[in-house]
Amino acid sequence: MKWFSEKNDTFALSLKIRSRKKYKSSFQKIEILDSIQYGKVLVLDGIIQTTENDEFIYHEMLTHIPMLSHPNATNILVIGGGDGGAVRELSKYPSVKITLVEIDPKVIKIAKKEFPNISHALNNKNVTIINDDGSNFIKQKYNEYDVMIIDSSDPISHSANLFSTQFYKDAKNALKKNGILNLQSESPIANINFIKSIRNTLLSLFPIVKHYFAPIPTYPTGLWSFTFASLQHEPNLSPEKRDLLTILNTKYLNEEIFHACFALPNFIKKVLYNAS
Amino acid sequence: MKWFSEKNDTFALSLKIRSRKKYKSSFQKIEILDSIQYGKVLVLDGIIQTTENDEFIYHEMLTHIPMLSHPNATNILVIGGGDGGAVRELSKYPSVKITLVEIDPKVIKIAKKEFPNISHALNNKNVTIINDDGSNFIKQKYNEYDVMIIDSSDPISHSANLFSTQFYKDAKNALKKNGILNLQSESPIANINFIKSIRNTLLSLFPIVKHYFAPIPTYPTGLWSFTFASLQHEPNLSPEKRDLLTILNTKYLNEEIFHACFALPNFIKKVLYNAS
Repeated sequence: MKWFSEKNDTFALSLKIRSRKKYKSSFQKIEILDSIQYGKVLVLDGIIQTTENDEFIYHEMLTHIPMLSHPNATNILVIGGGDGGAVRELSKYPSVKITLVEIDPKVIKIAKKEFPNISHALNNKNVTIINDDGSNFIKQKYNEYDVMIIDSSDPISHSANLFSTQFYKDAKNALKKNGILNLQSESPIANINFIKSIRNTLLSLFPIVKHYFAPIPTYPTGLWSFTFASLQHEPNLSPEKRDLLTILNTKYLNEEIFHACFALPNFIKKVLYNAS
Repeated sequence: MKWFSEKNDTFALSLKIRSRKKYKSSFQKIEILDSIQYGKVLVLDGIIQTTENDEFIYHEMLTHIPMLSHPNATNILVIGGGDGGAVRELSKYPSVKITLVEIDPKVIKIAKKEFPNISHALNNKNVTIINDDGSNFIKQKYNEYDVMIIDSSDPISHSANLFSTQFYKDAKNALKKNGILNLQSESPIANINFIKSIRNTLLSLFPIVKHYFAPIPTYPTGLWSFTFASLQHEPNLSPEKRDLLTILNTKYLNEEIFHACFALPNFIKKVLYNAS
C-alpha cells in the first residue's frame, strides 16, 4: 500500500491508496487513485478534484442551490466539471438543456471510463459537450442561460481566467436577466480574503451576492464555499421547489440544509461585511 | 522546516512546523508544535487536540450550545479539556462555578505555559481543578450539575470510559433533573456508526438527544459532531439568551449558526434515524 499526498506550503492531506494511474494532457497531469477511505479519486496537477465517496456533497451543493432558487431554469451552462458530477445532478430536473464547457477533453474521456457513477449523464441526449476555455466560450453568448455553474479547479493555471473581473462581466452578459451565476469559491478558512475579493467584484455587477458552505473532507481545511450571484433572485426554496427537492434523491441536501448552509460564522462575516 | 503528520490507517493530515517539543506524562505522550498555518498545536499520543487558530470553533460550539439552552446554568462540570479552552468560554457567563476534572496534570501545566490565550481562565477563582479520571469522579455525584461538558480525546486509551454506557448513567445521576449533558462525539463522516451507538445509548437514558456539527479543519475529515442530551431542555435560544450571545464575543457562533448547526444532511439522517 502506498500513500498519495496533496501538499501546499503549510498543509498536506494524504490518502492511503491501492493504486495510482498517471496520465498527461495538453493542459495538466491527470491521476486516478484508488483510495481506501474515499474510493476512486480524480487528481489534476496534484490537487484532489473528485472522490467517489464525498463528491455528492460538492455536486449537490454546487447545482441544486441555484437550480431550486430559479423559478424555471431550463437552459444551463456548466464551465469546468469534466467529471460529469454537476451534469448528473442537473439532469435530475425535467426539460433542461445542459451545455458543458470543459477545456480538457482528456478529463472527460477518463471520467467516462473511471467514474461511471459520476459521469454517466454526460452521455444524455440533452447534454452538449464543448471543449473550449470557458472564459472564451461565453464571450459570444448574450442573454442565453438561466443558470451558469462554474465548476472550476483552483484559481491558478488555466482556471485563473474563471475568477477574473472580465469573466464575471461576460458571465453576466451570457445570463438572462433573471439568471443565476453560481461558483465554487475555495475554502473560507484558508482563503477568506480571496472570497472577499470575488464578492467585491461580483457586487459591482450583481445586486445579490450570497455565500454558502459545505463540508468537503478531501478539500483543504474540509470546509468549502460557494458563491451565488444574481440580478433578481435571492436563494429561495418555494413550496413547489420544496416538493421537487424531496424527489431529487439527494444524499446531502435537504430543506434544513438549504437554509442552514447560508449561516455565516462571525469570523467570516467580519471579513466579508467588515463587521466589527 | 519539518512536517508533523497525524496518521490513521487510511488518512493523514500534515502540518508544516517550525518546532516540535516532546513530553511524556503517566498517561500519554504530549507534544507542542509550532505550525505555520494553525499556530501552536497541542498533540496527545500523536493526535491533534487543540490549535491556536481553530480552537475557537470547537470550544465555542462545545460550551455555548448547552449553556445558552439552559435557563440558568451556574454549576458546571467539565471532564477533560485540560487545555482550558472550554473553561475560558464557560467563564464568560456571570456567576458560574466551574469544576474541571482532567486526568493528566501535565496537560494543564503545559497548557498554562504554552497556550496562555486558551488556558488563562484556569486560574480564575471560581474554577476548581481536579486531577482524576472523570468516569470515577462522577460516581460520587448526585443531582449536582446544571451542565456537564465532556471534552474528551478520542474514545481509546484512558478516554474510552468517557463513552461507556456506565459513564452516561453516572452522568445522568450527577446532573440535576433539568441538566444538560454535552459531548464531543467525533467525525460524522469517519464515524457515523459510532455516533449512532452513542445516540442509542443516550436515548435509553434521556428523552432529548440532539446532534450538531461544526467545521474543525485540524480534526480528521474537517467536520465534527457534538451530542446534546437532556431530560427537559431542547437546544433553544430564548430572547434573553439571544441578547447574552451577542455579548459573549464569539468568533464562530451567532444566532444563525445556533440554529443552522443542527441541520442534518440526508446521509447522516439515514443512519441516525434509519430514514429511507
